[in-house]
Amino acid sequence: MSGEKLRLDRGLFGRLRRDAGAEWEAYVRHPFVLELGAGTLRPRAFQHYLRQDFLFLVQFARAYALAGYKSSTLAELRTASASVTAIVDVEMPLHVAYCAGWGISEAEMLAEPEALETIAYTRFVLEAGLAGDRLDLEVALMPCLVGYAEVVERLLADPATVRDGNPYGAWLDAYAGDDYRQVAIRAIDNLDRLGASRGAEARYAGLLATFRTATRLEAAFWQMGFSI
Amino acid sequence: MSGEKLRLDRGLFGRLRRDAGAEWEAYVRHPFVLELGAGTLRPRAFQHYLRQDFLFLVQFARAYALAGYKSSTLAELRTASASVTAIVDVEMPLHVAYCAGWGISEAEMLAEPEALETIAYTRFVLEAGLAGDRLDLEVALMPCLVGYAEVVERLLADPATVRDGNPYGAWLDAYAGDDYRQVAIRAIDNLDRLGASRGAEARYAGLLATFRTATRLEAAFWQMGFSI
Amino acid sequence: MSGEKLRLDRGLFGRLRRDAGAEWEAYVRHPFVLELGAGTLRPRAFQHYLRQDFLFLVQFARAYALAGYKSSTLAELRTASASVTAIVDVEMPLHVAYCAGWGISEAEMLAEPEALETIAYTRFVLEAGLAGDRLDLEVALMPCLVGYAEVVERLLADPATVRDGNPYGAWLDAYAGDDYRQVAIRAIDNLDRLGASRGAEARYAGLLATFRTATRLEAAFWQMGFSI
Amino acid sequence: MSGEKLRLDRGLFGRLRRDAGAEWEAYVRHPFVLELGAGTLRPRAFQHYLRQDFLFLVQFARAYALAGYKSSTLAELRTASASVTAIVDVEMPLHVAYCAGWGISEAEMLAEPEALETIAYTRFVLEAGLAGDRLDLEVALMPCLVGYAEVVERLLADPATVRDGNPYGAWLDAYAGDDYRQVAIRAIDNLDRLGASRGAEARYAGLLATFRTATRLEAAFWQMGFSI
Repeated sequence: MSGEKLRLDRGLFGRLRRDAGAEWEAYVRHPFVLELGAGTLRPRAFQHYLRQDFLFLVQFARAYALAGYKSSTLAELRTASASVTAIVDVEMPLHVAYCAGWGISEAEMLAEPEALETIAYTRFVLEAGLAGDRLDLEVALMPCLVGYAEVVERLLADPATVRDGNPYGAWLDAYAGDDYRQVAIRAIDNLDRLGASRGAEARYAGLLATFRTATRLEAAFWQMGFSI
Repeated sequence: MSGEKLRLDRGLFGRLRRDAGAEWEAYVRHPFVLELGAGTLRPRAFQHYLRQDFLFLVQFARAYALAGYKSSTLAELRTASASVTAIVDVEMPLHVAYCAGWGISEAEMLAEPEALETIAYTRFVLEAGLAGDRLDLEVALMPCLVGYAEVVERLLADPATVRDGNPYGAWLDAYAGDDYRQVAIRAIDNLDRLGASRGAEARYAGLLATFRTATRLEAAFWQMGFSI
Repeated sequence: MSGEKLRLDRGLFGRLRRDAGAEWEAYVRHPFVLELGAGTLRPRAFQHYLRQDFLFLVQFARAYALAGYKSSTLAELRTASASVTAIVDVEMPLHVAYCAGWGISEAEMLAEPEALETIAYTRFVLEAGLAGDRLDLEVALMPCLVGYAEVVERLLADPATVRDGNPYGAWLDAYAGDDYRQVAIRAIDNLDRLGASRGAEARYAGLLATFRTATRLEAAFWQMGFSI
Repeated sequence: MSGEKLRLDRGLFGRLRRDAGAEWEAYVRHPFVLELGAGTLRPRAFQHYLRQDFLFLVQFARAYALAGYKSSTLAELRTASASVTAIVDVEMPLHVAYCAGWGISEAEMLAEPEALETIAYTRFVLEAGLAGDRLDLEVALMPCLVGYAEVVERLLADPATVRDGNPYGAWLDAYAGDDYRQVAIRAIDNLDRLGASRGAEARYAGLLATFRTATRLEAAFWQMGFSI
């Protein structure tokens, strides 16, 4: 374990997160998440979330493929390509295996219709990236990438969180490791590099609008699970 | 007035509409629409719908601009260009003028955040068109284009519809004219032409999936107004 | 006639033009252009250019449709939509009428295969706009938009240019008017506005690379006509 | 070694290849290729080709990233992702290592401006894929993918080809192996699958136009090396 800390106040991401204040807090401390930490979330809500999250991952992989196309250097292309591979060849098989433990098969998830909230979030991200450039795309992806790391860090630091006997413990563990924190740290670093070369400072108002909407749609995604 | 009838069972559109049976009916006979016809819809619901419909129109115009880019003939390009012009230079000013009568200013609408349902529908359409070709895009646009003509035709034929003193009468009139019916008729014809040249027959399963999702998202757009 | 002067040294465009020094000069003072001004260009070269320019205009209109899709404000969308209309409904019919005078029919031009140089320039512009954002797209379009105005202004100021009896006189007149100069002036202004909101300063190196390549490809387009 | 034969007359690819008759032959039997086989090609021509081919590979990888985004199934996404990885993590390092033997460094290739022919071919492919769907994109990629396998098979069967002491022998060997033939065979198979689901039959005229232009641009790419 590298022990490198997740610094959420750094750089462009830190500024976006601060300025999205209320929306960000509503996302990372959503009741779905708090109940998951407390182990009180209804299994049916979690299962609905798991099925939609599978469909979400497919679109998420497409978003990184799009980032690959939108690369202007070979290094950017390699990073994006590694992300697609990580999603389709590592994350998705892990997700499928985990879902099997909840009685959900891959075939069932592939046949599931996408919920309104899944469509809203994923197509918003993809379309923001298509209409804009790679910076617009990466900003739209940040709430997901870094948010999950923050959600889990805060849950683990929260006395209301139950680890022993929590049916969602394995889910927490999956995002609590050093590996996922490294993914989030690298994403924060990469955004600064990309922001510097693509004029983030002058484009800040538009980038913040994208970030806030993506954050709002992430919260709606938790809510989708929660209110079923 | 040409008097040409709107034939909803014709060609590729007719087939898609039939096969989307339950979703289509849930859209064109949504309670929002029925209450609008009966004049019983709450003004607050209608005003919310009007504000979001303005934001929808901006994205709709972008979708036709995208269709212009995706044209493979000059004729296709001209048709798409005329649609963009019709939306931004005719429909939107009419919408703005109409909304003023409901106490809603253009500035207010431009400042309104897009609802989840507005994002879901518009970005789904745009992204389907970007990932696929012009046929995928046009299929995703059909539920809106033809649906409004059908909604109004059925309301006008419905004894439960109130025309005298209905606060929504002007809205009904706007879509009841020969002009809008011609738009719908031409869209049905164009889809057949495009479908023939872009292999609609062999691609039918995918096109139907797009059409059903777009129809479902249109119904969700009514529901957004209805449930506020 | 407004008499407003074309100021080629202003703003972002002025900086790009200066920094593309040698490429820019090779484009706006290409032998094709000088011989056209002197009336000594071989008709066969000019006719080849005219046919390819028609095919170029189709792609140019698609580029503005793409700019319409890539708009983030209604004002930007309206500007792009007006450009598409101007190209397909005004410029192209004028081009077709002018070509008829040189014995070239529209049908002939539609059947003409695109030359390597036509493909290179048009697809470079479109793809730069798709991979990047609207600023990348507009920068790629500038050499064409402003270059033609400069080419003609310099020819008219050049004692080597022949106006009486020059077979290409009508072509010169078409771009010499106040109308076209206004198009170029507005393009220079718009680029500054767009550049300010999309971070042109920080992105300058990349924008200059796009501008230089587009300028080089414009020169290659003259050369295509010249060397037939 | 599987020994599976490359069947060039099969399926959709076979039909496209036949119908592009003269263009195809001009590409796969271009003087550049014949002289390469005979060992008589000027080293300077080959080195120019190698430098541009590196720049081509970057765009080629972006095209597969785009195919990943344009996938409609997880299987399609995985195939495209594997292609990007193969290009950026296997082919490009091999190319760099091979070029080093010809005295060309990676830094030199990265600094090299793209030739007109490189821009024309790569941007045509990418833009065809963006304007159309994944089938349009894959058809535009086929001349490169399968053409190299055919070029080398025909050279190896040609008595004019010199293997002993041919300075280009290692290049021939790289494409002559079973590995590359398998890539070409799988591409031919995949195109049939994709064509069946995306309506290739009804879209054949448009697909053939794309295939012919791509083939013509591949020949121009050889010519670029040849005529330096």
